[in-house]
Amino acid sequence: MVKPIVVSIIGAGRIGRLHADNLRAMPSFKLKSIAEAMMSEELLAWAESRGLGSVFAAGEDILNDPEIEAVFICTPTDSHASWIERAAHAGKHIFCEKPISLSSEETQRALQAAENAGVLLQVGFNRRMDPSFRKLKRLVQSGELGNPHIVKITSRDPQPPGEAYVRSSGGMFMDMTIHDFDMARYLVGSEVAEVYTRGANLIDPMFGRCGDVDTAVITLTFVNGAICVIDNSRQAVYGYDQRVEVFGTLGSATADNCRPTTVEVSTATSVTRDQPEHFFLERYNQAFMEEIVAFARSVRLQEPVICSGRDGEAAQLIAEAARESYLSGLPVKLSVTAAEAGFSELQAL
Amino acid sequence: MVKPIVVSIIGAGRIGRLHADNLRAMPSFKLKSIAEAMMSEELLAWAESRGLGSVFAAGEDILNDPEIEAVFICTPTDSHASWIERAAHAGKHIFCEKPISLSSEETQRALQAAENAGVLLQVGFNRRMDPSFRKLKRLVQSGELGNPHIVKITSRDPQPPGEAYVRSSGGMFMDMTIHDFDMARYLVGSEVAEVYTRGANLIDPMFGRCGDVDTAVITLTFVNGAICVIDNSRQAVYGYDQRVEVFGTLGSATADNCRPTTVEVSTATSVTRDQPEHFFLERYNQAFMEEIVAFARSVRLQEPVICSGRDGEAAQLIAEAARESYLSGLPVKLSVTAAEAGFSELQAL
Amino acid sequence: MVKPIVVSIIGAGRIGRLHADNLRAMPSFKLKSIAEAMMSEELLAWAESRGLGSVFAAGEDILNDPEIEAVFICTPTDSHASWIERAAHAGKHIFCEKPISLSSEETQRALQAAENAGVLLQVGFNRRMDPSFRKLKRLVQSGELGNPHIVKITSRDPQPPGEAYVRSSGGMFMDMTIHDFDMARYLVGSEVAEVYTRGANLIDPMFGRCGDVDTAVITLTFVNGAICVIDNSRQAVYGYDQRVEVFGTLGSATADNCRPTTVEVSTATSVTRDQPEHFFLERYNQAFMEEIVAFARSVRLQEPVICSGRDGEAAQLIAEAARESYLSGLPVKLSVTAAEAGFSELQAL
Amino acid sequence: MVKPIVVSIIGAGRIGRLHADNLRAMPSFKLKSIAEAMMSEELLAWAESRGLGSVFAAGEDILNDPEIEAVFICTPTDSHASWIERAAHAGKHIFCEKPISLSSEETQRALQAAENAGVLLQVGFNRRMDPSFRKLKRLVQSGELGNPHIVKITSRDPQPPGEAYVRSSGGMFMDMTIHDFDMARYLVGSEVAEVYTRGANLIDPMFGRCGDVDTAVITLTFVNGAICVIDNSRQAVYGYDQRVEVFGTLGSATADNCRPTTVEVSTATSVTRDQPEHFFLERYNQAFMEEIVAFARSVRLQEPVICSGRDGEAAQLIAEAARESYLSGLPVKLSVTAAEAGFSELQAL
Repeated sequence: MVKPIVVSIIGAGRIGRLHADNLRAMPSFKLKSIAEAMMSEELLAWAESRGLGSVFAAGEDILNDPEIEAVFICTPTDSHASWIERAAHAGKHIFCEKPISLSSEETQRALQAAENAGVLLQVGFNRRMDPSFRKLKRLVQSGELGNPHIVKITSRDPQPPGEAYVRSSGGMFMDMTIHDFDMARYLVGSEVAEVYTRGANLIDPMFGRCGDVDTAVITLTFVNGAICVIDNSRQAVYGYDQRVEVFGTLGSATADNCRPTTVEVSTATSVTRDQPEHFFLERYNQAFMEEIVAFARSVRLQEPVICSGRDGEAAQLIAEAARESYLSGLPVKLSVTAAEAGFSELQAL
Repeated sequence: MVKPIVVSIIGAGRIGRLHADNLRAMPSFKLKSIAEAMMSEELLAWAESRGLGSVFAAGEDILNDPEIEAVFICTPTDSHASWIERAAHAGKHIFCEKPISLSSEETQRALQAAENAGVLLQVGFNRRMDPSFRKLKRLVQSGELGNPHIVKITSRDPQPPGEAYVRSSGGMFMDMTIHDFDMARYLVGSEVAEVYTRGANLIDPMFGRCGDVDTAVITLTFVNGAICVIDNSRQAVYGYDQRVEVFGTLGSATADNCRPTTVEVSTATSVTRDQPEHFFLERYNQAFMEEIVAFARSVRLQEPVICSGRDGEAAQLIAEAARESYLSGLPVKLSVTAAEAGFSELQAL
Repeated sequence: MVKPIVVSIIGAGRIGRLHADNLRAMPSFKLKSIAEAMMSEELLAWAESRGLGSVFAAGEDILNDPEIEAVFICTPTDSHASWIERAAHAGKHIFCEKPISLSSEETQRALQAAENAGVLLQVGFNRRMDPSFRKLKRLVQSGELGNPHIVKITSRDPQPPGEAYVRSSGGMFMDMTIHDFDMARYLVGSEVAEVYTRGANLIDPMFGRCGDVDTAVITLTFVNGAICVIDNSRQAVYGYDQRVEVFGTLGSATADNCRPTTVEVSTATSVTRDQPEHFFLERYNQAFMEEIVAFARSVRLQEPVICSGRDGEAAQLIAEAARESYLSGLPVKLSVTAAEAGFSELQAL
Repeated sequence: MVKPIVVSIIGAGRIGRLHADNLRAMPSFKLKSIAEAMMSEELLAWAESRGLGSVFAAGEDILNDPEIEAVFICTPTDSHASWIERAAHAGKHIFCEKPISLSSEETQRALQAAENAGVLLQVGFNRRMDPSFRKLKRLVQSGELGNPHIVKITSRDPQPPGEAYVRSSGGMFMDMTIHDFDMARYLVGSEVAEVYTRGANLIDPMFGRCGDVDTAVITLTFVNGAICVIDNSRQAVYGYDQRVEVFGTLGSATADNCRPTTVEVSTATSVTRDQPEHFFLERYNQAFMEEIVAFARSVRLQEPVICSGRDGEAAQLIAEAARESYLSGLPVKLSVTAAEAGFSELQAL
């Protein structure tokens, strides 16, 4: 029997707990401890209900625990980079939530630390592991669609976040569209050469007050000639709208929304089916599991991760350029040479 | 924190292991032991991979263990009834796979034992907990579809079982259609008054040699007037075909097949999407989990189970009548008064 | 340029006018005259709006007009057979609406008359020419589905007809299901050996008062082993429900309902799409045109018609057996030898 | 009975013949004559097959014929404007194919001529009358979708045109995307303030040699804040891809492709359905008929046309700006004030 990988989680918010539940259910991991700066009764109750009453530990102790092989960094974004550096120095493999940071310099430093330490660093762009999007990737990689010409990503949240979240989020492009930037790179298999953003504040003036947008259409031009268009909204009243299409010389493939049931109801007044899965916890439920299965495989076999720190950095740079384009109203070119160098094609699916 | 329910599994074949994995992943259960008469290296390797190396115990010891509150009976069908009786005498709550037995008398005796002992007995008609079929049930119960007039169940396996399985299965109606008989009762909410079977041996002469059929269309007439038609095949080359439709005075609802992804691929020669989920492990993955969640709730709250022993018996009686109709070529009436008395409407969804 | 076929219509009710409009629009026909026993202002207005003000003629004059090559018999059912006989004696090719008659003897006599006269007789089972059902037929004929094992036909009207119609209709099996009986024969390519009907009066007691049913599930067993199940309702509140499925050894093909648009609307409360096309005029609009295109080709090239008098008779015999089964509650065998002799496989699609 | 409108067609190419067939089938029109500069045997054979052998006339004679109320201008684009001017002077109502011309000045002059003469001028943006897109328009107008935020138009041809066509087409934006520009204005109900084009030559170097593109993603920003994105390709190998989506504050509506049948085939290797309708003749068959029904109503009731000369001009101006943006790589602003003045909201659906 293969020994499970001993892991700890830094940060027990919504996403940290999600990973905790998934890690518990998988034979390949043993969740040893969780660090959380802000303990609460509600968090303790959650832990009790999982039989994890005595799991909490200080972050430093986790890093110093030699039994722990890997850490999941699930803290707020502004501390990701520093935790990466510390975990790297402690020799732990790292799974870090997106984005790595809100600053290119910080991200550079964190990536350098991980590289110097020789530890694996996987970034949590979980959508790469969604079964439908993986199938799109396979179709592109196998050549069945020919050369990709047009990629279309629809990504709309069911309801807008609160003002506090918006103010600390780094803006819609860095917080939300960053997933789509990664998806575009993942599917096209090339680097972005130019970004044009048309953003607007149409849903709630709060976004405008925060210097942010709530609606956008973003055009990415890739080095290999493909054109990608992403449309975002912070409020799709019918639910979480997540669709992707890849159009190439030999054909087109679309990934539609997932829905809780396949039931269609026909009555005297209407024919209805289910709304899309409510939000990311439901929609990407399987993707969240698959990304840590992939992480386990990378750790065990010392294989490249499915989404590297360089992938995280690339998406971050596109997000910055998208914001710059929004502010200037002009297309923005990316320094492709640098980015291209860092492009890490997914090795295995 | 609520204490988990301590359970054991009797029988570690395909379905027993499935329950084992689901029980392990759920905080509400603690899987203490597994009994299996036929140990094998392959079974031990499976147990090792789950960290269940020392879980095996004798069936008698399980029944005598006072810590164990409930048992899952997953042995071959011919020993279900006797295990129910023994577990009932030992005061354990019982989850038993379908069918309860191949003989009405045995089933009667087992049910009586459970009733006398005052233990819960849930039968594993897991499809009741499939999200799509549950939605159909809710639509019927809420009255949104009006009175059900026609119910259509398509139930086709991806490939035929082997001859050994067929010989011990009790025949297609008892082994396969029994799920559809339960679904029909569950959705219509009434009892079957008459059965007409048109069966055939079209796929493999082996079925005929075993005195069985591989293809059938069965018409059920319910006491409340509804008519249900079930079509079965032992070999749908495109995968596991599981669809249900309820047509009533106020509308119709259909539950379509589930598919692994939502991807549609359009090329110069075709437009394709995924085949249905391969077989019952994939298709009813969630239903298998939900049925034990429901069992936990029944045990904890001493509520009626979602599928009772009387439900199991009713489906068995319909299966017997279906076979009789097949053999005689004539419709067969069921003794409704008796069955009706045993009808246990699902209380809560 | 090919000279158009000069035709006349006997009977200017709903279906006669439908054919008139289609004949007018097609270069291959010249509609010379229409006979109608019951003239009305409303009929005259209809004719005026088509520029057909002076088109009306007596039925006898039509039969005596040597320029007229073919007649469309669109009168009430009880005069179909006698018009067939008279038109055959007059040497006209015949397109006759379904059913040929309500009596096997009358139908026999009419068919004999047409055969003796050497005129073509096409029966108006228009659904054979529906693009989706034709595709099913091609898939069966090409062998792509293998041997058909199970055929499922759903055929439900949007609302029930009035009592006067019901009383003169010959009953649901002869009036409505007869289309489905023809579809089953058309798709399976074999003859019906046995019929079992489970009928009910669930929608309106009026049907019961007329000795008729409004709901039925009918099982047909074919000589080649295929089993077909038809479900009918006189009232599907969501519209005209017309679906067909053919399941065979190599695969399955389904034909879904047609809808006016492809629009899907997602809001905060629902995801809706169009109801099915309202009724047969909309749903089979193209089939009504294609059947007369096929008739023109048969007349011009003296080819067999796509749906012969023998096809009409076969469907009628199944309808009679279906009613007999409903009344007796028992399966009814058909005299296959006779029917098989008359089976006319569709030659070309 | 209402007298039909006497019409003539100028130009008997593919689109002129299409209109001829539709006009023939409709009681509200009488097609009196057709003018064609380039007579051919093939054209004569076509006319013969429709019984239109003696229909040909000189363009001048048509304009001088006082019986003729309206003309359909179906000549090559470069003579549209001059025919509009001459027909207007002759007092004929005008249906003109798109685009009006390749030059804003010519278009202006033609529109002025029609206005001065007081004749109706309808431009052939037939897609406005497609049943699915009309439903989208109704959903926007009724307010059911709330304020439109994002409009997405996918418009891809099944195969590229030949070089001769490309050279005289005015370029992809003027020839093909112009339909999408009109659709965007029609659905959003506002004017375009800014255009950004990302075009490419990915399919055939021929397009590049002609100074044209074969692939493009175009972002339109509307005065009312809505953002529209159009994606075009000259070659979708799976067929004519025509989809539209409107996303607003209260919901989203999508119009999918139309397909010849509803058949889905499931086999051991795939699940397939039909490719989209092959090209515009099939896909917009009904729209081509509805647009002339609407024209007849406008002529009879002296109502505004469903697509005016000003609508034609507006789409042309956007096409020019799209090309300018493609050439410069920068967003291009439109002089909205002028355009807004000419905006003619569709009055009735």
